[in-house]
Amino acid sequence: MNVPRSGRRKVYRHADGDLRVPAQEVALSDGSSILLYDTSGPGSEPVDGLPPLRAAWILARGDTETYEGRSASRRDDGRGAPLREAESVRPPARPPRRARNGAAVTQLAYARRGEVSQEMAFAALREGVEAEVVREELAAGRAILPANVNHPESEPMVIGSRFLVKVNANIGNSSVTSSIAEEVEKLTWATRWGADTVMDLSTGADIHTTREWILRNAPVPIGTVPIYQALEKVDGRAESLTWDVYRDTVIEQCEQGVDYMTVHAGVLLRYVPLTVGRTTGIVSRGGSIMAAWCLAHHEENFLYANFEELCEILARYDVAFSLGDGLRPGSIADANDEAQFAELRTLGELTEVAWAHGVQTMVEGPGHVPLHKIRENVELQVETCKGAPFYTLGPLTTDVAPGYDHITSAIGAATIGMFGTAMLCYVTPKEHLGLPDRDDVKAGMIAYKIAAHAADLAKGHPGAKEWDDALSAARFEFRWEDQFNLSLDPDTARSFHDETLPAEPAKTAHFCSMCGPKFCSMRISHDLRAAAGAANVEVADAASIEVHLREKAAEFLAGGAHLYQPVGDKP
Amino acid sequence: MNVPRSGRRKVYRHADGDLRVPAQEVALSDGSSILLYDTSGPGSEPVDGLPPLRAAWILARGDTETYEGRSASRRDDGRGAPLREAESVRPPARPPRRARNGAAVTQLAYARRGEVSQEMAFAALREGVEAEVVREELAAGRAILPANVNHPESEPMVIGSRFLVKVNANIGNSSVTSSIAEEVEKLTWATRWGADTVMDLSTGADIHTTREWILRNAPVPIGTVPIYQALEKVDGRAESLTWDVYRDTVIEQCEQGVDYMTVHAGVLLRYVPLTVGRTTGIVSRGGSIMAAWCLAHHEENFLYANFEELCEILARYDVAFSLGDGLRPGSIADANDEAQFAELRTLGELTEVAWAHGVQTMVEGPGHVPLHKIRENVELQVETCKGAPFYTLGPLTTDVAPGYDHITSAIGAATIGMFGTAMLCYVTPKEHLGLPDRDDVKAGMIAYKIAAHAADLAKGHPGAKEWDDALSAARFEFRWEDQFNLSLDPDTARSFHDETLPAEPAKTAHFCSMCGPKFCSMRISHDLRAAAGAANVEVADAASIEVHLREKAAEFLAGGAHLYQPVGDKP
Repeated sequence: MNVPRSGRRKVYRHADGDLRVPAQEVALSDGSSILLYDTSGPGSEPVDGLPPLRAAWILARGDTETYEGRSASRRDDGRGAPLREAESVRPPARPPRRARNGAAVTQLAYARRGEVSQEMAFAALREGVEAEVVREELAAGRAILPANVNHPESEPMVIGSRFLVKVNANIGNSSVTSSIAEEVEKLTWATRWGADTVMDLSTGADIHTTREWILRNAPVPIGTVPIYQALEKVDGRAESLTWDVYRDTVIEQCEQGVDYMTVHAGVLLRYVPLTVGRTTGIVSRGGSIMAAWCLAHHEENFLYANFEELCEILARYDVAFSLGDGLRPGSIADANDEAQFAELRTLGELTEVAWAHGVQTMVEGPGHVPLHKIRENVELQVETCKGAPFYTLGPLTTDVAPGYDHITSAIGAATIGMFGTAMLCYVTPKEHLGLPDRDDVKAGMIAYKIAAHAADLAKGHPGAKEWDDALSAARFEFRWEDQFNLSLDPDTARSFHDETLPAEPAKTAHFCSMCGPKFCSMRISHDLRAAAGAANVEVADAASIEVHLREKAAEFLAGGAHLYQPVGDKP
Repeated sequence: MNVPRSGRRKVYRHADGDLRVPAQEVALSDGSSILLYDTSGPGSEPVDGLPPLRAAWILARGDTETYEGRSASRRDDGRGAPLREAESVRPPARPPRRARNGAAVTQLAYARRGEVSQEMAFAALREGVEAEVVREELAAGRAILPANVNHPESEPMVIGSRFLVKVNANIGNSSVTSSIAEEVEKLTWATRWGADTVMDLSTGADIHTTREWILRNAPVPIGTVPIYQALEKVDGRAESLTWDVYRDTVIEQCEQGVDYMTVHAGVLLRYVPLTVGRTTGIVSRGGSIMAAWCLAHHEENFLYANFEELCEILARYDVAFSLGDGLRPGSIADANDEAQFAELRTLGELTEVAWAHGVQTMVEGPGHVPLHKIRENVELQVETCKGAPFYTLGPLTTDVAPGYDHITSAIGAATIGMFGTAMLCYVTPKEHLGLPDRDDVKAGMIAYKIAAHAADLAKGHPGAKEWDDALSAARFEFRWEDQFNLSLDPDTARSFHDETLPAEPAKTAHFCSMCGPKFCSMRISHDLRAAAGAANVEVADAASIEVHLREKAAEFLAGGAHLYQPVGDKP
């Protein structure tokens, strides 16, 4: 079960038909309440998985069919799997589904045809916009709604610059550490803290099986980087990769229900030399793998060469592209260089190819970028990729603080979000140093929800400011419990407060522990209002107090603004 | 003692005369080293205090004199002091010093006269600029060098938009918690983590004595808000404050050696009504006190009324103004409102008055500001205050994350620093919730050193990028020890790494724990270079590899860019 944050409860907004859209309700002490966006899902027992929310909608459209699916291989669970007993293998939940021959089943195709799908209506209700706005943005390619027909458990959401800035959390095992149970737990933990999508970047044992558990328990879209699994199937030798192995892996993941896939098709052979003079070379794993393959064979990147066929596959399942930036800068020194922007131009070209096949597409971005070079990244991406959603990793705004890269990058993430980036891939404190544990996942999510919300405020997203205003009003009125419950992390806010002033009455007393009673500026502000109200104003509301104070100020000015006049109303 | 961060040692840069300017040296494994800015001071035993570095310089100028000083009162240690045994009282270190009659002893006065003081030379060497640049910026009022003649222990530093962005750490006891020893420990701790100045905001017991201990052990300029102590002297009743009590408190603090003072002289009576409709009223303590005083008396703010006399006092000790923003916004809702900007215009007027008296002046700013409204704050301050350095608290870019306001505000701080703010007042995770402890001070300092450095990079400060480049080069070359030692927090970086891969060999192995050996993209980049180098290039340097790779890429293109040609050099 995904336990809600304290002081909150899950509620549902209802709309036409059977739509029930989740939200987190914070009940305030004055009887009012505020609804916050909720990504935590209905909660699942891992073995059972989540109920298939979208199954009936998909079925009712009648444009997909089930089929036998590809033949599984022990290699699907990684290079070590053939040597192990496959104890952990989980049977598929249901036969795979794909578009009927000739049917266009992507949300992009529906949107272009003028159809508002239930997924669009659901996402619109979550965002607080008209469904037609979602449809328009999807149709124009400026937004995506990742929703593989084989992942009916996901609650539809939309990624685009007109909507709330989204946050992705990366999880996944590696050859060094982690187990399946830990990864499912990280998924649940990440969505509890607001992850809008989760990427499973597993590279270790049980890749296929881990992903199956994750998908069946994921209320959010799941992304992957299929080249990682393909590389496992060829024992980790980049030069042994083939299009056939890769294509088979993509189909495997499409059938499981992966919603979007990072594809490093922009790492062209001729761009590799551009990275040689860099301070940190190629830092993207997928980019490095493809560059090694290109050089080993002296052939063009097979993902680029076979991109149209890849589009045809993804279109049949409504899997979205996340066009990977394999040549992204890995240091301040390499930001906005020729290699990065050469690849971006190719991603722009591929975006149009994907759109021609009706495949939803977003484009990945850096990485490491100093503050003054961030805007150029967004503007160039918007222009080059015709407004396709931008999805960036941070960026980190300095390289000097390993251990704190959730902060170095939250600065960049808020800024790039303000300029229109649609989704931010979180960075945890362990970035560059090790694998994130549970605390790191939370720290990364909190930093990125802050960055995303700061960007939403700066973009003027309707509704974003309502949350800040509610919390600030609670703060000004010393409604401590409301302040805690409205916090991004209620328990931490409460425990920090209680460290200094643990006694219960402090939560309603009109002073706080920073200043002591006489010093608290907010209390003094209250006294000011009360004094003004008591003097000669009957109704002590803000407007009449203001009139009164203006009168007093006018008296002061009319009297010649003399200093040290006789004492007036003494509070 | 202030123990240096691990992997670093204190060294000194030498220049003409007896100048020895501290730096932290990081020795790298290739035999080279890099020098980082150092604020930690020479280290002191609290009882002895620091050696008076600047005493000989001040004496040699011959423009100051010692005198008896004001008479102390038990009230100096707070309202409770007369009732207590004054066990903790510390005798003054030396008789107070002030300008001889008619002498202009401020760094501003020296700069205007074309004199480069030792303080300017010292600060310039720390910044890596010519001393003349410091003098020019001081003379124009665009920078300050806070250096009370009674605080000879401080190591000179400069605050201005042309220099490194500085960070202030607030410490200080309150009526609720804390002891003198804890405050001195916090001072030492804050400077260890890079605090450029420290403000003592004590409001509880032993105010005078705590400040004496802090000053005698402070290698950085110390700032205060004298109204806090003045209020203690009148038992916390704002309406009982008088100019006489305030003036006496200012002289007391000038004699002790406070380097800059926050003065809320811009909170005019007629501005108070502008705050009534706000979401969070007046959130500055000093601003609230002065507003209460104004309304209680219906007179103009006595700090404004007596501002010229205050200038005369500060000029005699070379104490700088930090013109307080008593009406700063305390929430996103109140950012950039009429009250805030009305006060700013008054601060601009006061800046010119202070300059006319030769007093160094900086101007304080918000607070809480959404990202898209930050730039306007800087531009308006620069215009209104004629380029006087801007010193801001954050700003927080959202109100919704109490417990994490070091992050919500580091985002705003980096942005406002990039636009030209000279100093950032840190915010700790306890902001709005309680008093910071040792861990909070460190968390606040780290977040703000990140913000300041990100701003330095964005401003293109000479030398800022050298640090990032050194760390990134170490990262790319798997020099783990160099990477740790170059980190803002070496111990945290090392311990995060060791959590996943504790074995010593991992520090030199060419893979890291995120990916495992085959996956590590950086190692693949190295393989690429090696493969290219081995093929037919004798000297495997970057330039010749690049030539080689360009030749290979050209071959590919010249051959018609056919895919799947015969396999080339296989690594």
